[in-house]
Amino acid sequence: MSQKIDQWVEAQRERLLAELFELIRIPSISTLPEHSGDVRRAAEYTAQRLREAGMENVEVIETEGHPLVYADWLHAAGKPTVLSYGHYDVQPADPLELWESPPFEPEIRNSNIYARGAVDDKGQFYMHLKAVEALMRVEGRLPVNLKVLIEGEEEIGGKSISKYVPAHREKLAADVALVSDTALYAEGLPTLCVGLRGLVYLEIVARGPMRDLHSGLYGGAAPNAVFGLVELLAKMKDAEGRIQIPGIYEDVAEPAEAELESWRRLPFSEERMRSEEVGSAELTGEADRTVLERVWSRPTLEVHGIAGGFTGAGAKTVIPATATAKVSLRLVPRQDPEKIVAALRQFVREHTPRGIECEVKVLSQGPGLLVDPAHKAMEVARKAFATTMGRETVLIRSGGSIPIVGEFHEHLGIPTLLMGFGLPDDGLHSPNEKYKLENYYLGIRTVAEFLEQYGAESA
Amino acid sequence: MSQKIDQWVEAQRERLLAELFELIRIPSISTLPEHSGDVRRAAEYTAQRLREAGMENVEVIETEGHPLVYADWLHAAGKPTVLSYGHYDVQPADPLELWESPPFEPEIRNSNIYARGAVDDKGQFYMHLKAVEALMRVEGRLPVNLKVLIEGEEEIGGKSISKYVPAHREKLAADVALVSDTALYAEGLPTLCVGLRGLVYLEIVARGPMRDLHSGLYGGAAPNAVFGLVELLAKMKDAEGRIQIPGIYEDVAEPAEAELESWRRLPFSEERMRSEEVGSAELTGEADRTVLERVWSRPTLEVHGIAGGFTGAGAKTVIPATATAKVSLRLVPRQDPEKIVAALRQFVREHTPRGIECEVKVLSQGPGLLVDPAHKAMEVARKAFATTMGRETVLIRSGGSIPIVGEFHEHLGIPTLLMGFGLPDDGLHSPNEKYKLENYYLGIRTVAEFLEQYGAESA
Repeated sequence: MSQKIDQWVEAQRERLLAELFELIRIPSISTLPEHSGDVRRAAEYTAQRLREAGMENVEVIETEGHPLVYADWLHAAGKPTVLSYGHYDVQPADPLELWESPPFEPEIRNSNIYARGAVDDKGQFYMHLKAVEALMRVEGRLPVNLKVLIEGEEEIGGKSISKYVPAHREKLAADVALVSDTALYAEGLPTLCVGLRGLVYLEIVARGPMRDLHSGLYGGAAPNAVFGLVELLAKMKDAEGRIQIPGIYEDVAEPAEAELESWRRLPFSEERMRSEEVGSAELTGEADRTVLERVWSRPTLEVHGIAGGFTGAGAKTVIPATATAKVSLRLVPRQDPEKIVAALRQFVREHTPRGIECEVKVLSQGPGLLVDPAHKAMEVARKAFATTMGRETVLIRSGGSIPIVGEFHEHLGIPTLLMGFGLPDDGLHSPNEKYKLENYYLGIRTVAEFLEQYGAESA
Repeated sequence: MSQKIDQWVEAQRERLLAELFELIRIPSISTLPEHSGDVRRAAEYTAQRLREAGMENVEVIETEGHPLVYADWLHAAGKPTVLSYGHYDVQPADPLELWESPPFEPEIRNSNIYARGAVDDKGQFYMHLKAVEALMRVEGRLPVNLKVLIEGEEEIGGKSISKYVPAHREKLAADVALVSDTALYAEGLPTLCVGLRGLVYLEIVARGPMRDLHSGLYGGAAPNAVFGLVELLAKMKDAEGRIQIPGIYEDVAEPAEAELESWRRLPFSEERMRSEEVGSAELTGEADRTVLERVWSRPTLEVHGIAGGFTGAGAKTVIPATATAKVSLRLVPRQDPEKIVAALRQFVREHTPRGIECEVKVLSQGPGLLVDPAHKAMEVARKAFATTMGRETVLIRSGGSIPIVGEFHEHLGIPTLLMGFGLPDDGLHSPNEKYKLENYYLGIRTVAEFLEQYGAESA
């Protein structure tokens, strides 16, 4: 079966690439108002291609922000339903001077496509469309029911889709979501991401004197908002990075031994991470945990930014009246964000230094997620990978958060297959973003293979 | 003797004020390049008035920045020499909308002169010139030798004068410096400031990863520059504000019991300071010290500002690569700035968290200073105050630093009389800066009285 698809893809190589290039050339930068027309053009281009591929009920859905694109094909009675998700918007391209070729004029160099959006996510969600087209042309139908939902605000927070999903549970009902917006763990290594950390993001504002004071005249007697905040934050972790907020580790689920064992077999190099990615004298954190455990299955607390008082050039001797820190906790599965926020608020109440008042603002919160590796779609995905890549799939987690996966879990009650074909060094959000050309075709074939096998193996 | 001066001042009230107003109307804002012509005009105005008052060798001295104004009168053989200092430059006036009358159009309201520079320092250094004129007109000569040195960069760091003083030790040689750039402790209370804290001002830069990292992908294993700096700073003081850097209290001189006793008699209210000046829930600092001790005779450490990572609106999940803090230590007499800087550097080396590198940059350093209350000029100043104000002088300290006092001490080997006539609520550097009108005349009379008695009582 896959051979026919392979042949079709092979025969259509030029056109499949030309269509992607046409999509990439639309500078659909969602955060810049002057590009809102381009964002709409990208939505309409996507809708048109869905129609041409044979999808039905194609809609460009108006929102308060950029449009959503929806389509479905629901004629595989008795077969499962897959919800394909992606985003057609991209990050800004600046700093422009660091690009070796224009960001919105895709160019092939070293067998890579260089362009903004090449891998994130145009080059990846478009694979789903082309897998659909391949199946329609070769088989005349799809092996499963398919719903497609593509958004244009992923790079700016996904506000519209996060309103749309809970309001359209029936319309979007599916057995599994399929997302290609991640990377292979290493080149040639089939990868499924089965765990994501959650995130509680907070702003802590400390207030001391009613206005900035002269540190000569008041230093020694007046509370200092910056120092107060510094004292409070420092108490939140010990020297090893263990969070000191009571109860924070209470609900942390340890990964199964089998999962830990599979992590040990990954081609991970602590020294390479230290020297090539982090660039610090050493890696830090909980000494009794491996680095992958620390970033994948342990809660962490980070201060993302801090500001207060005088920070210009030279010297100014003020006792600052206010200071602000951006703080987040990454959560692992089973930790309850509400409970974590409450514990942090309690900690702040108990540890705010004398003379200081602290306010905690919660900017966002979401739980960590695990996909059951025994889920039927997971099994099928591994087989599809084995067929197209000839290797066993590694199951990894990500220390990051993908909010849409949480939305699908919460509102549709479905797991998400994170089946991405990027590579770790693709430079998402950076100049010279790239996508390996062959992975574009590999992705089309693997997604088609997955859909075929998922349909074939389901009663 | 003082009666003649008083009569002369009384007779000249209108003109003495008109001249000051003329000086104030020149917007000599030293920090704004577009006002450099005005700064020069203020220097030339000052030089011209010195000539008219009968001073000799009047010079407008070119520097790399704004000019210095020098003058002398050295015909009091056998009498001591006084070095009068002041500054003719002012702070910017913004925010303009908060002024009730234009900042450079002086206006009398509630018996105060409202204008930028009214008290800081035009209205005060100009008293010295008018005291000279009064003595010249009434006596035909000065009772002491006098040198006058007025700068135009006090509000921007005093760079030119700090080069000029050590290079002109002989020219500036004197027995005592006289500065009117401070305030009375309270209205009607003759005040001499006899102690100043020194200052070591530092910038500490912390570096962690080589660039900002994604906190999902690296949180838990990568060092965080902001948190590293926070941890380091928090270790520098305990909860009571005691500095934890070893050796920091070693050379701290305790004030004499008599001085402590005099502080207890000052009309100081801790509650008023808390509620009206600081505005925090409580005052903080070393519990076993009075508030005046904490700000006048104890070393303190303050963080004036901190910056690092993402501090814009909303959420960004980076592990910051760098963070910077502005830190100062206020020093009391006998503490050696070099030794303090070395102790702090050692502390930073020993307490910088793992994975972080810290750099300490010293932006400035100067020792604390005490004026011997038994110095002849101090005695005479108290008598002059008793004559013009009818009350005993209080000896206070200031927790702040006045760099020029350190320069005179270090390079000319002389003490400085800080005889100011401002009031604590004059609003220096703020909108609606004011100077009590009567204090302008009081200052002229008291300075003249001081010069007369200093000459009369010296062999």
